[in-house]
Amino acid sequence: MIKHTVFFKLNHPVGSAAETDFLKSALALAEIPGVQNLACVKQTGAKNDFTYGLVMDFADGQAYHLYNVHPAHVKFVSERWLPEVAKFMEIDYVPLSLSPVNT
Amino acid sequence: MIKHTVFFKLNHPVGSAAETDFLKSALALAEIPGVQNLACVKQTGAKNDFTYGLVMDFADGQAYHLYNVHPAHVKFVSERWLPEVAKFMEIDYVPLSLSPVNT
Repeated sequence: MIKHTVFFKLNHPVGSAAETDFLKSALALAEIPGVQNLACVKQTGAKNDFTYGLVMDFADGQAYHLYNVHPAHVKFVSERWLPEVAKFMEIDYVPLSLSPVNT
Repeated sequence: MIKHTVFFKLNHPVGSAAETDFLKSALALAEIPGVQNLACVKQTGAKNDFTYGLVMDFADGQAYHLYNVHPAHVKFVSERWLPEVAKFMEIDYVPLSLSPVNT
């Protein structure tokens, strides 16, 4: 399982209707095949200036690839993401198996 | 529920015993009261240069605060994190309730 996360800051004022519209439109990405557990989140940490995030899971790299190239994703990126997002950072991760150290 | 995540790059060579020892020692943070679902993860995205991450959940801000000031956390930060971590980024988030847009 791959967790795909992206944290971002919008060009819109916090609390604006344009902001809410963007966030709601992002939730439609859940309809793309392979996308699991899509959620829009509020970034609350003080050590970065991202305000929101999108988190989702993919079964494997193939599902993730199919999402990336899916027309609905490509359209969202060109019509909403690029013009409305001021700054973003993507972080993806997979589980790592480690036994706890014996103390 | 607050998800606390931190992604980092170590001073140790990838695959080294020192790297494994650091990652295993981080898992002991799970013993601190209030820490839920602690996991060590491998960062796989190509758009940043972090190699690993630690993810955990807290019931609320108070549990998160108690973790931050807990002696075991403070000791881990001073004895392992500061000398062994080359670069890191913390991202915290909470669920955001948004209804999907009607299309």
